[in-house]
Amino acid sequence: MAGSTVGKLFTLTTFGESHGVAIGGIVDGFPANVAIDIDLIQMELDRRKPGQSKLVTQRKESDEVQFLSGIFEGKSTGSPIGFLIPNTDSKSKDYDHLKTVFRPSHADFTYEKKYGHRDHRGGGRSSARETASRVVAGALAKQFLTSKGIQIQAFVNQVGKIKLSENELAHLDLSLTESNLVRCPNPQKAQEMEDFILETRKKGDTIGGCIQCRVTGMPAGLGEPVFDKLHAEIGKAMLSINAAKGFEIGSGFSGVEMYGSAHNDIFNEDGSTKTNNSGGVQGGISNGMPLVFTTAFKPIATLIQSQESIDKDGNKVIVEGKGRHDACVVPRAVPIVEAMAAIVILDFLLRQHAQSV
Amino acid sequence: MAGSTVGKLFTLTTFGESHGVAIGGIVDGFPANVAIDIDLIQMELDRRKPGQSKLVTQRKESDEVQFLSGIFEGKSTGSPIGFLIPNTDSKSKDYDHLKTVFRPSHADFTYEKKYGHRDHRGGGRSSARETASRVVAGALAKQFLTSKGIQIQAFVNQVGKIKLSENELAHLDLSLTESNLVRCPNPQKAQEMEDFILETRKKGDTIGGCIQCRVTGMPAGLGEPVFDKLHAEIGKAMLSINAAKGFEIGSGFSGVEMYGSAHNDIFNEDGSTKTNNSGGVQGGISNGMPLVFTTAFKPIATLIQSQESIDKDGNKVIVEGKGRHDACVVPRAVPIVEAMAAIVILDFLLRQHAQSV
Amino acid sequence: MAGSTVGKLFTLTTFGESHGVAIGGIVDGFPANVAIDIDLIQMELDRRKPGQSKLVTQRKESDEVQFLSGIFEGKSTGSPIGFLIPNTDSKSKDYDHLKTVFRPSHADFTYEKKYGHRDHRGGGRSSARETASRVVAGALAKQFLTSKGIQIQAFVNQVGKIKLSENELAHLDLSLTESNLVRCPNPQKAQEMEDFILETRKKGDTIGGCIQCRVTGMPAGLGEPVFDKLHAEIGKAMLSINAAKGFEIGSGFSGVEMYGSAHNDIFNEDGSTKTNNSGGVQGGISNGMPLVFTTAFKPIATLIQSQESIDKDGNKVIVEGKGRHDACVVPRAVPIVEAMAAIVILDFLLRQHAQSV
Amino acid sequence: MAGSTVGKLFTLTTFGESHGVAIGGIVDGFPANVAIDIDLIQMELDRRKPGQSKLVTQRKESDEVQFLSGIFEGKSTGSPIGFLIPNTDSKSKDYDHLKTVFRPSHADFTYEKKYGHRDHRGGGRSSARETASRVVAGALAKQFLTSKGIQIQAFVNQVGKIKLSENELAHLDLSLTESNLVRCPNPQKAQEMEDFILETRKKGDTIGGCIQCRVTGMPAGLGEPVFDKLHAEIGKAMLSINAAKGFEIGSGFSGVEMYGSAHNDIFNEDGSTKTNNSGGVQGGISNGMPLVFTTAFKPIATLIQSQESIDKDGNKVIVEGKGRHDACVVPRAVPIVEAMAAIVILDFLLRQHAQSV
Repeated sequence: MAGSTVGKLFTLTTFGESHGVAIGGIVDGFPANVAIDIDLIQMELDRRKPGQSKLVTQRKESDEVQFLSGIFEGKSTGSPIGFLIPNTDSKSKDYDHLKTVFRPSHADFTYEKKYGHRDHRGGGRSSARETASRVVAGALAKQFLTSKGIQIQAFVNQVGKIKLSENELAHLDLSLTESNLVRCPNPQKAQEMEDFILETRKKGDTIGGCIQCRVTGMPAGLGEPVFDKLHAEIGKAMLSINAAKGFEIGSGFSGVEMYGSAHNDIFNEDGSTKTNNSGGVQGGISNGMPLVFTTAFKPIATLIQSQESIDKDGNKVIVEGKGRHDACVVPRAVPIVEAMAAIVILDFLLRQHAQSV
Repeated sequence: MAGSTVGKLFTLTTFGESHGVAIGGIVDGFPANVAIDIDLIQMELDRRKPGQSKLVTQRKESDEVQFLSGIFEGKSTGSPIGFLIPNTDSKSKDYDHLKTVFRPSHADFTYEKKYGHRDHRGGGRSSARETASRVVAGALAKQFLTSKGIQIQAFVNQVGKIKLSENELAHLDLSLTESNLVRCPNPQKAQEMEDFILETRKKGDTIGGCIQCRVTGMPAGLGEPVFDKLHAEIGKAMLSINAAKGFEIGSGFSGVEMYGSAHNDIFNEDGSTKTNNSGGVQGGISNGMPLVFTTAFKPIATLIQSQESIDKDGNKVIVEGKGRHDACVVPRAVPIVEAMAAIVILDFLLRQHAQSV
Repeated sequence: MAGSTVGKLFTLTTFGESHGVAIGGIVDGFPANVAIDIDLIQMELDRRKPGQSKLVTQRKESDEVQFLSGIFEGKSTGSPIGFLIPNTDSKSKDYDHLKTVFRPSHADFTYEKKYGHRDHRGGGRSSARETASRVVAGALAKQFLTSKGIQIQAFVNQVGKIKLSENELAHLDLSLTESNLVRCPNPQKAQEMEDFILETRKKGDTIGGCIQCRVTGMPAGLGEPVFDKLHAEIGKAMLSINAAKGFEIGSGFSGVEMYGSAHNDIFNEDGSTKTNNSGGVQGGISNGMPLVFTTAFKPIATLIQSQESIDKDGNKVIVEGKGRHDACVVPRAVPIVEAMAAIVILDFLLRQHAQSV
Repeated sequence: MAGSTVGKLFTLTTFGESHGVAIGGIVDGFPANVAIDIDLIQMELDRRKPGQSKLVTQRKESDEVQFLSGIFEGKSTGSPIGFLIPNTDSKSKDYDHLKTVFRPSHADFTYEKKYGHRDHRGGGRSSARETASRVVAGALAKQFLTSKGIQIQAFVNQVGKIKLSENELAHLDLSLTESNLVRCPNPQKAQEMEDFILETRKKGDTIGGCIQCRVTGMPAGLGEPVFDKLHAEIGKAMLSINAAKGFEIGSGFSGVEMYGSAHNDIFNEDGSTKTNNSGGVQGGISNGMPLVFTTAFKPIATLIQSQESIDKDGNKVIVEGKGRHDACVVPRAVPIVEAMAAIVILDFLLRQHAQSV
C-alpha cells in the first residue's frame, strides 16, 4: 500500500536506499519445484549495472545478488525468495552539500513534502538503484516464462531525435540488441545513438530515449477485463520505472490519426490477425499476437552543469554538477523494461490459471 | 483480482453487461458525513450518455442512476454506496447474428478464449457501457475533491490529425469545453473536429482522438514511491478506459527529444516551478504544480461497413456494419477521463492522509 | 479496505442497510462456464430468512434475490455477478425513538464514534440483514465446491448450557440437521434447545450458542503458510459474522490441556490420520482430513426488556424492548457459517490452483 | 497473496527458513519521521529467543536484528524498513534423517502435498523461527502505539489444566509478567506452571497453554464493519501464530451460556461500560474499553519420544525424538502475541486515519 510491492499473485516487495547498507527484496508466489539458474539472474543484473561501458555511469557497483531463502537444492520451494544486493561503492560524503537542497526535477522536493525526513544521499529511496531488485525478480520470472515459450525482448528504438523508422522497426534482428552499447538492434542507428550520447555527455548534458518491448509466445486470454486490463497493468509497470513519462501499446499515439477501417486488425482463419495495431491486446486481454509496447524516458535530471535551485528554506542556491552519472537512461533501462514486463506477465499467467480451476 | 475493482482505500467495484438487466457498482471507502449532490452526479452521467447530440450514438439510454445505500439524509454514512443504472434500450435481437462471430479488433475473440462462454450482446461486459458506473463513482469523488480545492478538467485536444498546437494548449479557456459538441475548448478547432467527425461518420468509418486532463489545486505529496507512482496509477486508470492505447504525462513522448538542461523544471522560491515538463509529478509524487496528462484513443472498432472476419469455428464470415454507434470516442470519453482521474486522486489523498497519523 | 469485501481471488463485496432500498453485492472471480442453479441459492436464503419458524424473528422479509449480471443462458460468464435483495418489510418509523440513543452492546455507539453520521434504522449497516448477501455468494461457492466433491455442513452444537457431548459429536447423522427448527442433528438435544429458546424468548431475554462446521472432501494443500493459514482465514470469516465471539479448530481450547503425545495425529499409511485433533489443518494447510471448527455466538443484544442506556449527549435514557427479534442467533446462523466457509475455501482453491501453473 | 504478508496499510512481509542463511522481512507503511529505539526492538527479540531460560529450547540463536534501510539518522523515513536476522546455530545435519519423513502433526506432510519440494531442515519455512521477524515489526509498531497511549500487554493465563480463575484474572498486576520464566503475572500460579512444564519436559512430552492479551488506551472507532471487523483481523493474526488452535474475545466461549440481559454491557454516562463482556469491540469496531482476547495453543508436536509415522512413499517409520525443543510454547509466544496485536492495531489506526481526511 505504501508502494513497495508490485503484483497480486506473483509479487515483489523491495527495500533499500542508494547509499544504505544494501538494497533487496522479497519475491512471493513463485511456483514451487522450478529449477533456478542463478548465473542467468546475475547476467541480467550485469546488463543493468553501472560501469559496464563507456556509455554509462562509472559508479563501480559489483551488484552481486545474494539469495537468502526460498531456493533449496537448486529449486524453488514455493516459499518467499529473499535476496539482497550490498551497496559497495557508496560515497555518502559526496552528497553532504545536497542535504538541504532540492535538485531540479528530482524527487528531493516531493520526498521532503511527503515525509518530512529523507535520506538525501544519492537520491535515497528515489534512486534508480532500486531497480536492481526489480531485475532480480524479473529474471526469475523470465526463466519461468521462457520455459512456457514466452519470450520478452526489449531494445532502444529512440535516443533524442534519432529514431527507428516504421520500416526499420519492421525489419529488426533482435539478436543484435546486445551487440552494441546502446542496445539498439539496428547497428547503424545504434552507432548514431552512441555518438550522440557521448557528445551529449561531453556537454555535461543528458538526453531522453524510448524503449520498445516485444513479447512473443503469449497465450490468448491473459489480462483481466475492465480495470486490470493487460496493457493497463503493463503501462503502470513501465511508468513506475524511473524517468518514464509515456507509454503506448500497438498503434498508440499514431493510431489516433487512423481511420477504423485501416486500424482494425482483420483475422486470419487461425485466429491470428493480418496486422497488429492492437499490439496483442483486445479488450484488455491478450489475443495471442505479439505484445508490442513502447516507453518514453525523459532526459536524466542530474547534469554536469551548474543549475539554479532552492533549498529547504526557499533560499536560492546553485546546484553544482558533479559525480558519476548516465547521460541517457535507456541503454541500462532495457533489462529493467524486460524485468517489469516479465513480472506483470507472470502475475497474469497465475491469475488466469487460477480461474481455470 | 478479477479486474472489476479499482482503488485501494477509495474503491469502486462494478458489474453489468451492455444488454443485461442493469449495470452498477459499489463505492467503498468514501468519507463519512459528506453532503452529496445527486443532481451533480446525474449531470456527469448525462455528459457521457448516448443520444446527447448529433455527434454521438443515438442509442437512447436514459442512464438514470439509483442509489441503494450509503447515503442517509443527504449525507454519506461511510458505508458502501451501492447504485445501479437500468438498461432500458437494449435491443438484444440486434445481436443474434453476432453470437458466434468475432468482430475485428473487438473483445469477442479474447473473451471467448479467456472464458469459453460470453454474453455476446453489444459486447457484453466489454462494452463501454460499463464506464457509466465509473462516472457515478468519479462524480462522487469529484465532489469531495472540489471541496478540497482540487479541480479536474479534461478536454479533447486531438481528433484524427486535427490537433491543438503547443501554443493553443498554452492559451486555453477551459470554461469553453462544454460549449461545443466535441468538448474542445478552442472553438475554431472544435468546429473543424466536429466537421471531420460527421464526415467520417458519413463514410461509415471511425477516427481516433486524444484527451488532455489538467488537475489544479493538487497538494504536494500525493503518490507512493517505487511501484505506485502517482502517474503510474493514473496511467493505468486511463489505459483501462475502452479504446485507450497511449498515455503520457508532462512532456511525455516529446520530452524524449529534449536535453536535460532544457527539460529540468527550475524552482521558484515558493517551491513552484518555472516550467512544468514534469506534469506535476517528480519521483512519482505530486509537487503541487498542475497535473497534466494526455490519453490516446484508437478509432472505434465498430464500423458501418462490411468487414471480413471469422466465426468461432474459424470460418470466414462477413460482419455487416449496422446499428447505432459513435464515429469518435473522445467527446463522450471526456467525463470518463475526469471520473477515473478523480477516483485515483481521492484514493491517493486517503493513502497519504493515512500516513500522517 | 473499508471492510466490505471478502476474499482475494473469489471475492464478495456487499452493500446495504437494514432499512434502505435494498441490500446486495457483487461476486467477482467466479469461474466461467459453470451451470448455476438459482433455486438452490434461493433455498439457502430461505434457511436464513426471518419468519421461517416460531423460533425466529417474525419480521416478514421475502428475501428474494435478483441477479443482474454475470450469468448468461444459465451459466456463469466469468464476469462479476451483481445481485440485490429488496428490503420489503422495513418499518423505519419503528426506529425513530432510537435515532440518538445507543443501545447496549450494539454497534450504535461505535458507528457514531467512527463515522459521525449513521443510518440508525434497525442497526443500519451493522444489522445482520447484511448476511443475506453472504448467503447468496456462499451458495454460489457451495455449488462449485460440491461439484468438486467438497461438502460443507454446519449445525448447532450448543445453546446456552445445552451442549452435544464428545460422544454425541462423534455419532451424528448430519442429514438430520434440517429436521428440526434449531438445526441440531441430535433430535433429543434439539428438542431441549428448542424448548430453552422458547422459554428464553418468553422472558424477553436472549441466549448464546455454538455452531460446528465440518468440511469433507477437502484436497490436501489448501491454505497459505505464515499469515494466511487456512484456519486463520476461516477464523476471520467466522468472527466477521454478527455476534461471533470465539473460534476454534480441531481440539481448540480443549487441546490446551492435552499432552503432545496424546494430541499428535498419527498417520495411516495412506496419509490420513488416526485422530483429527488438528481439525484438518497442519501448518496452516489442509491435510485432506475433514475440517472441523466451531464458532461461539454471544446472546443477541436486542432484548424485549427495558434497559438503562445513554444517548448521544451522554444523558441517561431507558431503551424500551420492542419489535420482532430472535431470541437465539444460531439456528439462522447455520447457513451463514456454511456460506462463509464456502467463500473462504473456494478462494483458497483458486489460490492453490494459481500456483500449479 | 502467497501468505507472506500481513496488514493493508502497515505491512510486514517475511522470508526465511529455519536453517537457511537468514530470516528477515520488509516493513512498509511505517509513518515517517518517528524516532526509533533499536535497543527496544532487540529487547523484544530477546524475550522470544531460544536459550533464554531453563524453560525453553536450548538452541543458541543470538537473534540479532540488522536493519538495512528505512531508518536514517535514528528516525524513520517512510521508506520500507528492510531487516534480517542471520541463522547462526543451524545444525542442518541433525535433520538428514527427516528428509523424506513426515513427523506427526507437523507441516511436513502438507508442505510436501502443496509444493512437491521443501526445505525439510528444522521445519524450513513452517518453523516458528519465522516469528522472530514478526517480533521485529511488532516492536516497531509497539513503539509507535505507545507514543499514542496504546499499551499492549500479553501474559500466560493457562498451562495444561493450570489456569487463572476469573477472580485471579480480575486482580492481576501485569507488571509482574516478566518476573518469572512462564510470563504469568500471578506468581503462585506461575510457579505451578513452571513446575508442570519442567515435569512434562522430563517425560519427553509437551503441553498446551493459553495467552491472554489486553490493550488499553484504545481509541473508539478502530476496525472496519462487515468483513474486516477488528476482532476478526486480530483473530486471524493470532491464529496465524504457530500452534494456535483457538481464539476468543471478551466473554468468548463462556458468553455462549449467558443470557443477553446479563451479557449486555451497560453504558456509563461517559460512554465507557460497566462490564466488558464485549472485550472492547462492538459491531467490529473498538469502543474505547480495553481489548481483551485469549489465544489457545496446542502442545508442540515435537516430542523427545519415539513416534510411529510414515515417509514420503507411505512406508511406516519410527520418528526418533531428539534435539532441543520447547516443552510448552506459551512462555516464548507472549512477545509474538503482543507483536501481532501491535501490527493489526497500527494497521487499523492508519485505516481509520485515512477516512478522517
